[in-house]
Amino acid sequence: MPTYVVTGSNRGIGLEIVRQLTQSPDNTVLALVRNLSKDHSSLKSLASEKTHILECDTSSLSSIRDFAKTARSTLGDTKIDYVINNAGVNLSEQNSSLQLAPDDLLDTIKTNVLGPAKLLEFLLQQGLLSENVRVQNMSSTLGSVQMTLSGLGRATAYSISKAALNMLNAHLATDLRKAGLKGAVVIVMCPGWVKTDMGGDGAMLSPEESVAGQLKVVHGLKDEDNGKFFNYRGENVPW
Amino acid sequence: MPTYVVTGSNRGIGLEIVRQLTQSPDNTVLALVRNLSKDHSSLKSLASEKTHILECDTSSLSSIRDFAKTARSTLGDTKIDYVINNAGVNLSEQNSSLQLAPDDLLDTIKTNVLGPAKLLEFLLQQGLLSENVRVQNMSSTLGSVQMTLSGLGRATAYSISKAALNMLNAHLATDLRKAGLKGAVVIVMCPGWVKTDMGGDGAMLSPEESVAGQLKVVHGLKDEDNGKFFNYRGENVPW
Repeated sequence: MPTYVVTGSNRGIGLEIVRQLTQSPDNTVLALVRNLSKDHSSLKSLASEKTHILECDTSSLSSIRDFAKTARSTLGDTKIDYVINNAGVNLSEQNSSLQLAPDDLLDTIKTNVLGPAKLLEFLLQQGLLSENVRVQNMSSTLGSVQMTLSGLGRATAYSISKAALNMLNAHLATDLRKAGLKGAVVIVMCPGWVKTDMGGDGAMLSPEESVAGQLKVVHGLKDEDNGKFFNYRGENVPW
Repeated sequence: MPTYVVTGSNRGIGLEIVRQLTQSPDNTVLALVRNLSKDHSSLKSLASEKTHILECDTSSLSSIRDFAKTARSTLGDTKIDYVINNAGVNLSEQNSSLQLAPDDLLDTIKTNVLGPAKLLEFLLQQGLLSENVRVQNMSSTLGSVQMTLSGLGRATAYSISKAALNMLNAHLATDLRKAGLKGAVVIVMCPGWVKTDMGGDGAMLSPEESVAGQLKVVHGLKDEDNGKFFNYRGENVPW
């Protein structure tokens, strides 16, 4: 009876992750949305009895801290088995490295890097993470330096934030185990180029196919996968 | 008669770079310091006739913009052949990924990533960069995800900022050429663990040896080196 936390679950890939997880009545899912007062009819329509729609704005430390407390009272002594850090932003997509908008870069780092770090920190403080927790940090091939050098360069601020997230992931791979979660496995995931609002019109991959692949990868993680960078097909992505 | 720009030249590796460059009377060196009103006797003592000590605080957009204008009036029609983005900060060195200080992370990104980007942007706007400019962005093995996973993990905010800088470098490798600098070559450099204030007591490498190696690498750069990650011995560092 595994328990999942999924950020950014109101639409796109996050919504599809919740949809697939709620197919199994055994799964407890904390489906996090940035703002509870907005319309979440899509998410509500697929919620099972064990789905909890909760607020967590990953750009806000206080919101993440409040969520961790809410999770404690919601879950009691139940531990979290899977954390899927899916929420992210892609600001000033068209800017090259010679036109970086400073605030956009820093805001992107705040949501895409600090958000995942603080979610784990605060859940750990609440004693909520399973000793064998699996953490999936949502990255992108745009976060691969090698692939960027091969000609993939665009969305500079987003790309920089995903490279930064990949490095955060490498530190978490050690630090979560040092913090007592001896079987923790953290990975970064490239979901592919998916047909969502963020993916845009050029994308070819359906959310269903991407998420089915992602969940297969995350459910099959072994101890030695700790720290690695996978795509939704389970292939390793170069740094 | 090459022209160099070196940021953070008041001490440590930057000071040693200026020392070695000023050995050759042909070299014009713009030696940048964060605050001109501080004591710069070490730097002044080794300045040649062609050394210009100028202010550029790489954590401040207005300071970088002002410097670019000053450089224009200092250099006239002379172009810059080498930009060495050496200035950087290492804040909250002891923090693990589960204790990141948000402001420290963002301030580190501001100086170590935005600073180099904006220096190049503003110098380009002033028409000051040579078509074959060589750019050395000072990184670290702590910016290598692969080496971090091999057990090098520490100084998380600094490490994240250097991974982010490595990604900026990958974008610059394309974007500077697109902006008309057809022979531009940009690299990231690991200086080794050097005996400086930042390097600390454990370091074994002298600034002289590290900088001699760095300058040999940067002077020997070929077109196909664009975007790569070298250490001071000229070896490739993995991402």
